[in-house]
Amino acid sequence: VTEPARSLLGVSGVHVQRFPEFVDLRGSLTSGELPGDAVPFVPRRWFMVYDVPSREVRGEHAHRICHQFLICVSGQIMVAVDDGHHRGEVLLDTPTLGVYLPPMVWGSQFRYDQESVLLVLASHLYDPDDYIREYESFLIEAEASSSSA
Amino acid sequence: VTEPARSLLGVSGVHVQRFPEFVDLRGSLTSGELPGDAVPFVPRRWFMVYDVPSREVRGEHAHRICHQFLICVSGQIMVAVDDGHHRGEVLLDTPTLGVYLPPMVWGSQFRYDQESVLLVLASHLYDPDDYIREYESFLIEAEASSSSA
Repeated sequence: VTEPARSLLGVSGVHVQRFPEFVDLRGSLTSGELPGDAVPFVPRRWFMVYDVPSREVRGEHAHRICHQFLICVSGQIMVAVDDGHHRGEVLLDTPTLGVYLPPMVWGSQFRYDQESVLLVLASHLYDPDDYIREYESFLIEAEASSSSA
Repeated sequence: VTEPARSLLGVSGVHVQRFPEFVDLRGSLTSGELPGDAVPFVPRRWFMVYDVPSREVRGEHAHRICHQFLICVSGQIMVAVDDGHHRGEVLLDTPTLGVYLPPMVWGSQFRYDQESVLLVLASHLYDPDDYIREYESFLIEAEASSSSA
């Protein structure tokens, strides 16, 4: 059994969580609680991204109110996060690792391979108006929200 | 986009749900709501099973109060369900397909391959006392609960 552990990427509110893994002759198992320290919101939706044909960048947006938690359940995916001031990256290459993205963090994923499957738990139902899709707009909104906080 | 659809296996309370799939040049995406028609409970926990070295049977238990929803997010897995009177099987071979197991349904999984990853959403935190691990005991408890219902 590996112990759970958290690390920070120096990006506002983001954390990377290692979940316990139980390995025996029958195979491996990992688990997490909802909500919990790792996933600090009640998930209202999940989605999965797979069969991504290129290693180019996906995602590239921020959410205004939606919290997300990302786990790469097969293959591997690089996740980049950016709060407008600091940027960090983490390689997700095991189901025992996940990244929490609070609202107002710019997120992108890249280096999908053929086996890669990204599982995302989200705090809200799908709402196209919750997306900030232009980085310049994100910087302006991030600056406005941090100066009003 | 494929439309969501539900099918029944003739086993008490069990349903198989097909989720919508959105395919474009950037890859594929599938999603579901929590709770929703497919997952009729609030998940308090997830776990994943992977690196299963044999194609033999895993699972083989029932829960007294815990509801579960199973998705094979990579590879393929056969899921068998049994309410004490009727038995059904379903092949999970895509992230767009899931099976709901209410309490007091005997469940087992088999034919894992090297790529197979099973994701389970559960309505309760882990409790070893909630497991019925002997099939004979399950039959007796299932009979008692159906005759008292």
